[in-house]
Amino acid sequence: VASAPLHDSNGLEVLGRETCLELLAGRALGRIGLTSEALPTIVPVNYWFDGHRILVRTSPGTKLHAATVNTVVAFEVDDVDPVEHSGWSVVVTGPTAEITDPEELERLRHAPLPHWSSTDGHVIAIDPAIVSGRRLRPGPRAQP
Amino acid sequence: VASAPLHDSNGLEVLGRETCLELLAGRALGRIGLTSEALPTIVPVNYWFDGHRILVRTSPGTKLHAATVNTVVAFEVDDVDPVEHSGWSVVVTGPTAEITDPEELERLRHAPLPHWSSTDGHVIAIDPAIVSGRRLRPGPRAQP
Repeated sequence: VASAPLHDSNGLEVLGRETCLELLAGRALGRIGLTSEALPTIVPVNYWFDGHRILVRTSPGTKLHAATVNTVVAFEVDDVDPVEHSGWSVVVTGPTAEITDPEELERLRHAPLPHWSSTDGHVIAIDPAIVSGRRLRPGPRAQP
Repeated sequence: VASAPLHDSNGLEVLGRETCLELLAGRALGRIGLTSEALPTIVPVNYWFDGHRILVRTSPGTKLHAATVNTVVAFEVDDVDPVEHSGWSVVVTGPTAEITDPEELERLRHAPLPHWSSTDGHVIAIDPAIVSGRRLRPGPRAQP
């Protein structure tokens, strides 16, 4: 049943889970929000969404690796035109696990996962347990 | 004294604080990493860096407002070319405070702070206590 778009308290259109996952599938740069040494931080990462999980390469010894194995993280992707103030953002919160199955790792060697955020073959999967998204439409500008 | 650029364990150039703050000053869309209802999340926001603090509009009653008053948050800005894998990212971690001084709020009414993330006049300041940045250069691509 088609229905009118929902809007949140800021007037932004609320996107459904399927729309959010489609948007995730179309990008490659995201940001992981995590806690490192008891402080919140954000790490930009390249990722690949295989339709089920968000896959990110990590290197043992890095902050990202230490803080993303078997925990819960936030993951954000957006595409916003800074001039028009239009675009969208998707935020995922979910548990992470390192992929250790050799066959799966072999398949992922050929995944479209660029290397700039890591020089190693370790891969973390984020389960998109909670998914939310907003679409921004051009609105009134701030007073100059 | 000029010195060669530092690089981190992933081979990314480490940016100094002054460079990071200059990069912050040139953008308007960032992302706040925070904890909401005991789960990590990331909220995209428009911001203005006045040379000392990161200023963000919030509305009472929103997740952003509840989670950003008198706490410590992460704040991230990046500018990455997804095709060339070149660009930069800056991450700030620091304490937040709501601006309540009427004169200061009046001045901020005229700040370049667009409204898409809020419909209200409340302003949160993030103190950039910890600043780190990386510059990405085009590197080898993932195997297709």
